[in-house]
Amino acid sequence: MDRTVFFISDGTGITAETFGQSILTQFPGQFRAMRRPFIDSLAKAQQVLHEINQCTAHEGKRPVVFMTLVNDNVRSVFESPDCKGRVMDMFHAFVAPLEDEFGVKSNHRVGRFSDPAKSARYHDRIEAINFSLAHDDGQSARNLEQADVILVGVSRSGKTPTSLYLAMQHGIKAANYPLIPEDFDRKVLPKPLLPWREKCFGLSIDPQRLSQIRHERRPGSNYASLIGCHQEVEAAEAMMRREGITWLSSTHKSIEEIATTILSQIRPDRLLF
Amino acid sequence: MDRTVFFISDGTGITAETFGQSILTQFPGQFRAMRRPFIDSLAKAQQVLHEINQCTAHEGKRPVVFMTLVNDNVRSVFESPDCKGRVMDMFHAFVAPLEDEFGVKSNHRVGRFSDPAKSARYHDRIEAINFSLAHDDGQSARNLEQADVILVGVSRSGKTPTSLYLAMQHGIKAANYPLIPEDFDRKVLPKPLLPWREKCFGLSIDPQRLSQIRHERRPGSNYASLIGCHQEVEAAEAMMRREGITWLSSTHKSIEEIATTILSQIRPDRLLF
Repeated sequence: MDRTVFFISDGTGITAETFGQSILTQFPGQFRAMRRPFIDSLAKAQQVLHEINQCTAHEGKRPVVFMTLVNDNVRSVFESPDCKGRVMDMFHAFVAPLEDEFGVKSNHRVGRFSDPAKSARYHDRIEAINFSLAHDDGQSARNLEQADVILVGVSRSGKTPTSLYLAMQHGIKAANYPLIPEDFDRKVLPKPLLPWREKCFGLSIDPQRLSQIRHERRPGSNYASLIGCHQEVEAAEAMMRREGITWLSSTHKSIEEIATTILSQIRPDRLLF
Repeated sequence: MDRTVFFISDGTGITAETFGQSILTQFPGQFRAMRRPFIDSLAKAQQVLHEINQCTAHEGKRPVVFMTLVNDNVRSVFESPDCKGRVMDMFHAFVAPLEDEFGVKSNHRVGRFSDPAKSARYHDRIEAINFSLAHDDGQSARNLEQADVILVGVSRSGKTPTSLYLAMQHGIKAANYPLIPEDFDRKVLPKPLLPWREKCFGLSIDPQRLSQIRHERRPGSNYASLIGCHQEVEAAEAMMRREGITWLSSTHKSIEEIATTILSQIRPDRLLF
């Protein structure tokens, strides 16, 4: 059941793709993705139409076309009988009922992003990325009072990618700080964290998985040994329990899932608009 | 026309949110976002239903409910007449026509992410994040042969967030390397880049905007002066032109838009599935 799938948008196509992918995971089979972002003129639309029709002729199966186009002229190219793909018009299905609900016409604005140079939210995201980078892996204890959250956990438990994701997608200033064997010997949190215990959120991980990840980085090292990983994870969890730090296991979670969980705990009010 | 908007999902809700946001930007007004991820049981669904109905009673206006729920039982809670919100069932609208098109039933699988510990694509994303971090701001010239792209440009032209976005969202190993006044005096690319000229992609920026950004970091500095920014940008563009490096202006673009443009140039074939 292999199919080619087009994602057509007048903007980046991220919406078309995110949504289209989610729908397609509901089906078995291999899908070949063709991204066609920034389709904002009739000429570009005609070009993509040609590709779609060639695909149909060549594969003997209609490609699926997910589109988020707000310009009526551009969209009409794919709505015409000349288009031999199976078109899923993502906006059309929802914009009309909402015009009804709100009692206003939609503005047909292209793209989900306003001019970043003028957007406060965008500015916050970039600031958060800079903050998270500067506070990666305990690099700096300065300005920790500005952190929205401080992720703690043993080395390679997923702190860095999660911090960056929280910053990039949600504008959250996420620092991260490693818990290392010396901390476990002292049985006390790293000193810079002591004033900010309430902002800490822990990541733990299955020792077997941790050992596997560490072996990829330093094969055969003591650092990667299963017994060492066991001890570190156990000590880290004991410390977090003692300090009253909430944690989750990153073992079977994507950074998106970890971030969503953290966000719902630390900023249930966090708005997006 | 202010409204409360619920995003309900059995997974992270990223799809519901990305899509719902795109739709809502088509309308004027303020929207208050309520995220309700991981709604995977009847009990949790009932709880959210209660919130929705309270909202309707309290605000005198129906909240809009974007939902991506694949479990039929959970979904039915919001489809019943008991639900006083205006429900936009995002999967329903597209899954049924695709079942038809493909001639198979959908599998009702929850969430867009497979177990990350077992997914090659997820592994690549994490590797790419590590690579991009290690090669941020010209920190390391090692393993540049592994880079999918090397972003070049003057300080604060947007290289770092773009590199991290490319890595995180697309699994692209994106290094970045600054072009600095010393390079312009020598009129030659930084030495570590010379073997990899073809992998370089430039970011430029309007000098006025650059000066503004740099003033935020180092107010009143020479580094931030408009005249200095003018000279650097001009010299950088001259260098990129001379070296045959494609570039774009990041001034009015979000990292998503920059990344999409770069991706379509360097990896038009990049697949997502």
